[in-house]
Amino acid sequence: MTNSTPIPGPVAPPRRILMGPGPSDIHPRVLLAMAAQTVGHLDPYFLKIMDETQTMLRQVFRTQNKLTLAVSGTGSAGMETVVANLIEPGDKMIVCVNGVFGGRMADVAGRCGAEVIKLERPFGEIFTSEEIEAAVKLHRPKVLGIVNAETSTGASQPVEDIARICHEHGALIAVDCVTSLGGQPVEVDAWQLDAVYSGTQKCLSCPPGLAPVTFSDRAVAAIDARKTKVQSWYLDMQMVKDYWGSNRAYHHTAPINMNYGLHEALRIVLEEGLEVRFARHQRNHLALKAGLKAMGLEYSVKEGQQLPMLNAVWIPNGADDVAVRKQLLNEFGIEIGGGLGPMKGKTWRIGLMGSGSSATNVLVFLASLEKCLLDQGLKVPAGAGVGAANAAYRATA
Amino acid sequence: MTNSTPIPGPVAPPRRILMGPGPSDIHPRVLLAMAAQTVGHLDPYFLKIMDETQTMLRQVFRTQNKLTLAVSGTGSAGMETVVANLIEPGDKMIVCVNGVFGGRMADVAGRCGAEVIKLERPFGEIFTSEEIEAAVKLHRPKVLGIVNAETSTGASQPVEDIARICHEHGALIAVDCVTSLGGQPVEVDAWQLDAVYSGTQKCLSCPPGLAPVTFSDRAVAAIDARKTKVQSWYLDMQMVKDYWGSNRAYHHTAPINMNYGLHEALRIVLEEGLEVRFARHQRNHLALKAGLKAMGLEYSVKEGQQLPMLNAVWIPNGADDVAVRKQLLNEFGIEIGGGLGPMKGKTWRIGLMGSGSSATNVLVFLASLEKCLLDQGLKVPAGAGVGAANAAYRATA
Repeated sequence: MTNSTPIPGPVAPPRRILMGPGPSDIHPRVLLAMAAQTVGHLDPYFLKIMDETQTMLRQVFRTQNKLTLAVSGTGSAGMETVVANLIEPGDKMIVCVNGVFGGRMADVAGRCGAEVIKLERPFGEIFTSEEIEAAVKLHRPKVLGIVNAETSTGASQPVEDIARICHEHGALIAVDCVTSLGGQPVEVDAWQLDAVYSGTQKCLSCPPGLAPVTFSDRAVAAIDARKTKVQSWYLDMQMVKDYWGSNRAYHHTAPINMNYGLHEALRIVLEEGLEVRFARHQRNHLALKAGLKAMGLEYSVKEGQQLPMLNAVWIPNGADDVAVRKQLLNEFGIEIGGGLGPMKGKTWRIGLMGSGSSATNVLVFLASLEKCLLDQGLKVPAGAGVGAANAAYRATA
Repeated sequence: MTNSTPIPGPVAPPRRILMGPGPSDIHPRVLLAMAAQTVGHLDPYFLKIMDETQTMLRQVFRTQNKLTLAVSGTGSAGMETVVANLIEPGDKMIVCVNGVFGGRMADVAGRCGAEVIKLERPFGEIFTSEEIEAAVKLHRPKVLGIVNAETSTGASQPVEDIARICHEHGALIAVDCVTSLGGQPVEVDAWQLDAVYSGTQKCLSCPPGLAPVTFSDRAVAAIDARKTKVQSWYLDMQMVKDYWGSNRAYHHTAPINMNYGLHEALRIVLEEGLEVRFARHQRNHLALKAGLKAMGLEYSVKEGQQLPMLNAVWIPNGADDVAVRKQLLNEFGIEIGGGLGPMKGKTWRIGLMGSGSSATNVLVFLASLEKCLLDQGLKVPAGAGVGAANAAYRATA
């Protein structure tokens, strides 16, 4: 630690194909936007960027919610924003835990002083409306928290019916859409979701660093009725909304260039159109699945409950988890994710998110995985994965 | 909010000269680094970037502290990180308030459940060791919080002697160095500061979005001895340090490209050398001051207590605060800051931060301000500001 400590070389990342649980492949247009000249956080130009970002976020969330903005932190900061603003010490919150992120939400709720009731399901399963209704009737919570797309397991949890149940019993519903937003339908208004958070680095294909959030009028009323301050100053929506709203009251210095990136990423989403984008995610998911199946790999989530953008499969017998992932990275530049929590060493998580959901990625991954599995001594029919994926693409052309 | 809502145009910010309270002028090398390809947050390449960033942050903080890293939020998230990790409900904390950011720290401390004792001074003044010693002796706090460089007033608060006093009475000292780091000496180890936070967008000349923090062994011991969880999951150093440390345990997805930017910004700081950089900030400050004085403007902070990177001056009689700042922005592309809190409408804040601390900026600002003040009907001797600044530069060549 002297003056003669050598200065490291400049940033020069290796070329990667990002097929893990996020960050996902970033469109070069988004990276270029990140490099635009920084302006002040109260510059009229930046205020216009904020307004346009809010408008585009509302379109992507499919909501008219006024309180819709990008929190200045990553997806987990979005989770903390939602919970910390809705919960006051002593409030009851049911948290549905069937993966790492449900578990995280329960932890956050406890730190916010909630009386936390955990509703648990094994990793990879989803909740039924009946069990949720029973729990809501029994506990009468202020808030129910649930994960729409469990990034740790690849399970897709329908939430529309659960939202109805919550409202019938006077509860608010908070939903984790970190991985689903921009990759499958998230209908905030139609489903009447009260507080929803996401992240930029999944199906929006923007670098990590911001957390889109939206709050219904019902949620805003709950925040307005608080008797105590939100425990986080940084994430206090009462103040943050005065900066994003017409007051433009200084709160904290917004991450200007991250917001440039999100602005461009949202433009790309809307240029493609949400329905087209969802269909693309689904099509590539089906092709990947056909390919993996032909190679003998099985999904760890039931058919019909699988996320298109996060494909979790059991690691085949005889394959070394870490060795395969290292080979994919070092020989082919492909990143996939390992299992999280109890799934560690048991599953691989293959992301097809945002601009990373492409036939190119599906095919190069299947071809590369074949090589890795053969190197592990496994028997894989030559070209079976790629063949099946191409057949799937031809069938849906 | 229909499918036919037009998509906004791409990000295309106007050219600005950033001479406000931050963000400051960003070196093109930093903007380019922000646009480098995103890799995964557990990619070996990114782990190397994190290690190098920590090493460089230690050099800039002048510390050997192991727990030195960049929090995934802006400077205010750094403040909240320091307070939330050191404070448990019921702990006593003295907060020294002589500006907006001291006031913010008191607010954050209260939200963390601290028994907050506010020590107050009028905006623009600084605290004496004697009054701090008396308060520490009387209240015996666990933590004393103080702002080294009050961005809202431009006052420079020496903290070395105060750190000694705190330690003599068993207290930890938490210091806000958001605006000072990289622009004037911040000697974490020599001054024995326990917890220090900063921001990237001031004298480090990186876009806003990260908060460098460092914790002494004494502070880490206090965190390790906590009986309660840190109330913020996102900012919990116990978990964050397992990601930045050798465990590499996943916590949250780091803002990859923001960290690229900080890496490049720190490289630039170290290439220049801290002492040379501090001298440059001082020299440009003195030239600006000579120019402003020649134009009849007075600093709102006493001589000897002025920050070189944040120059707060009284708005001259007859000048319209908002009109002048608008003219500077629209006619010359120059951003300066207005007053905050009780200084609103009374002071202007002129930043000379990081790469924005340059003779070019000093001269173009003085020349442009002359035009604005003349347009306001004020009497300004022709070329007096520029002439005096150039004389100051020649005297210190």
